[in-house]
Amino acid sequence: MTKQLEDLFAFLRFPSISTDSNHAGDVRACANWLIEKLNSMGLNTELHETPKHPIVIARNEHHAGKKTCLIYGHYDVQPVDPVELWDSPPFEPEIRDGRIWGRGSTDNKGQMMAHVLGVEEMLKEEGELPVNLIFLFEGEEEIGSPNLVPFLEKHKEALKCDVIAVSDTGMVAEGVPTMGYGLRGITCCEITVKGPKGDLHSGVYGGCVANPATAVAKLVASLHDDNGKIAIEGFYDDVRPLEVWEREMWAKVPGMTEADILNITGSPAIFGEPDYSSAERLWARPTAEVNGIGGGYQGEGSKTVLPAEAMAKFSFRLVPDQDPQDIAAKVKTHLEKHAPAGVTVEVHAGHDGKPYICDPHSENGKAGQVALEQAFGKAPVLIREGGSIPIIQDMKEILGVESLMLGLALPNCQIHAPNENFYVENFEGGIRLNKALLKELAK
Amino acid sequence: MTKQLEDLFAFLRFPSISTDSNHAGDVRACANWLIEKLNSMGLNTELHETPKHPIVIARNEHHAGKKTCLIYGHYDVQPVDPVELWDSPPFEPEIRDGRIWGRGSTDNKGQMMAHVLGVEEMLKEEGELPVNLIFLFEGEEEIGSPNLVPFLEKHKEALKCDVIAVSDTGMVAEGVPTMGYGLRGITCCEITVKGPKGDLHSGVYGGCVANPATAVAKLVASLHDDNGKIAIEGFYDDVRPLEVWEREMWAKVPGMTEADILNITGSPAIFGEPDYSSAERLWARPTAEVNGIGGGYQGEGSKTVLPAEAMAKFSFRLVPDQDPQDIAAKVKTHLEKHAPAGVTVEVHAGHDGKPYICDPHSENGKAGQVALEQAFGKAPVLIREGGSIPIIQDMKEILGVESLMLGLALPNCQIHAPNENFYVENFEGGIRLNKALLKELAK
Repeated sequence: MTKQLEDLFAFLRFPSISTDSNHAGDVRACANWLIEKLNSMGLNTELHETPKHPIVIARNEHHAGKKTCLIYGHYDVQPVDPVELWDSPPFEPEIRDGRIWGRGSTDNKGQMMAHVLGVEEMLKEEGELPVNLIFLFEGEEEIGSPNLVPFLEKHKEALKCDVIAVSDTGMVAEGVPTMGYGLRGITCCEITVKGPKGDLHSGVYGGCVANPATAVAKLVASLHDDNGKIAIEGFYDDVRPLEVWEREMWAKVPGMTEADILNITGSPAIFGEPDYSSAERLWARPTAEVNGIGGGYQGEGSKTVLPAEAMAKFSFRLVPDQDPQDIAAKVKTHLEKHAPAGVTVEVHAGHDGKPYICDPHSENGKAGQVALEQAFGKAPVLIREGGSIPIIQDMKEILGVESLMLGLALPNCQIHAPNENFYVENFEGGIRLNKALLKELAK
Repeated sequence: MTKQLEDLFAFLRFPSISTDSNHAGDVRACANWLIEKLNSMGLNTELHETPKHPIVIARNEHHAGKKTCLIYGHYDVQPVDPVELWDSPPFEPEIRDGRIWGRGSTDNKGQMMAHVLGVEEMLKEEGELPVNLIFLFEGEEEIGSPNLVPFLEKHKEALKCDVIAVSDTGMVAEGVPTMGYGLRGITCCEITVKGPKGDLHSGVYGGCVANPATAVAKLVASLHDDNGKIAIEGFYDDVRPLEVWEREMWAKVPGMTEADILNITGSPAIFGEPDYSSAERLWARPTAEVNGIGGGYQGEGSKTVLPAEAMAKFSFRLVPDQDPQDIAAKVKTHLEKHAPAGVTVEVHAGHDGKPYICDPHSENGKAGQVALEQAFGKAPVLIREGGSIPIIQDMKEILGVESLMLGLALPNCQIHAPNENFYVENFEGGIRLNKALLKELAK
């Protein structure tokens, strides 16, 4: 095994599960290991305490006149349950079939370590870096980065930079370098629909009072028309139309045909807002999804109750230039306006995050594209992502800088799931990518 | 304590929970006790084995020229969970505040024993009964009477009778004698809506495939218009219109005002099919109730999944002259016709039972009314019930005889729930009722 893989394996062996307080010591040990590794490379490191898990900062010697590049990553990982579904222990990494198997291998330790090792290689080969570098590694990404925004605000001056690079997203398919320049935002809410004070006998009382399960269904059903277009008043008002070049490029992105989508999701049919391709629906159009619905008896057989209450959880994925708070207000207005007779409806606001977009054809964007091409041997596709990474927008707002999303995950990398894995080829490509990126940015 | 209350207490002490195989011995011991009690009264008894719990039959000496009256009851009871909510142990009956507390006190041991003890008293006082009596007591009512129909069919000749009396329903309010002459029927079904092969990330895939939770909501919502009228084609075709006398009588039935319904259900508002009172909605109009709905993440906080599947359970309460199988077919057609795009919908049929109605002004019906008036000192109200007791209709079909429903339960008797209780006054009234009924029927 190469020294580089040995470093990654050492990093992967820490069960740095941020959500589980039993693993707080492991998260800290992982941060300490990282500090030592970065020190050993000749970088200046700082370990910043937060109310929970520490933030690790590392820099080379900065020089006026050089561009400053901040590389973000996270060293915490998701839990491993159900652990019995793993083919090899999640914190005992191993290589099989050209992939590195273990929790965090892709998300995010593998991608993050590729940047670290790229810098190490470059420092060894050239003695110094062509840019002023800031590594910013947090230990709370998997729990929603609760302490990152305060940290960014407090250290705004020290973190001043010209561009940010993040490898925490995906490649659309094996061997297809991918640059992301947009993310959907999100706003979540939950409704509780209440009727009778307790479950009623559906024979004795059915027909004279409203059924909360029927009412919640009416509310959920009211969110879309039959074609899948969202029926909330004003919902699409601020949606930025797709550019012509985006529609053209996305039509050619591999892995996004209807057959691909059906294959990967297993859905019986494609369904979505009329007049848009799947890629367009996922990357440039907002959604209203029910994440959960429940009420009454859901066990085996029948229980003829008229349930006392029912609930639904929603997440709305947002695109530029929708504002999460504006959408949350429109959703609330809609739900209250459509509240069926005979029940009470409570709307509970959830978390939110703004959508993000930057110009992939800017100077930095072009540098990212060239670096990807050099690392992987072909021109990258330019995409937005359907998911939400609120910190990208936070960094844009606080530091005033855009992020290049240079993701190395593949659709079958099983992030957040059992048997997470990372292609050795992408790990090695990631190291090349880092070096090419720093050079291109410096030009 | 009177000898009659002692008999009831002995009967109540058997934990004859029919659904729990651990209590099979208790159910049998209860049947044996009943046989002994009936023998001690001078009746001829039979204990009939079934694949599960025995059926107890008892008769006096029958004489040609006398009317034959069958009195049905059940000696099995519901489970007692959650047992910690009981104020006194469920199988250690006691009297507090004029009520007998214990599992089965109302449903059905108390009501049934009132008939038994009425017969005992009459036999002591008069030496014989004015009718040919058949007691039919089963031990499986609380599990849906799986062996009663085969038993009725096998013993059709021996069970030949002119009228059936059943005390297993309710009085509309304290001190208001009540005769039921109708029951709603029922048909149940469950739908499973399937989309992707597994839960999807709502950001990564939301927007390009249909969400089964949205689809199940659309289907549930399609069952009613916004006023609560059922929107299934042909659903109301066979509904028998209310008679003028029924609307007039029900308007005067106590305990059925909107304020009463709101008070007992705790619902925030009255809701139901336009142009009908609550009593009419409950007793003479059919329903489409969601008993359960579920899909996706229902726990605390948020989990932004697009669920793989969702489900809903329905029960439809039916009124004369709706046919459960006809309605089940119409429901299935409706659900298949309204199946949203992009998902598959499976409809699974559940159990059913026909609605029941008889003429409360027939000769036997009048005898029931007079007996209630004699026992409780005022003319009874005539109602139908919202619930379903399929065996009443089964007995009508197999034995060709109608049932008088002379219920003694009160709305606060907590049947099927912790702290089940039976008013001592209604127990004593039930004994008087039995004697008056047999006399009136004999006239």
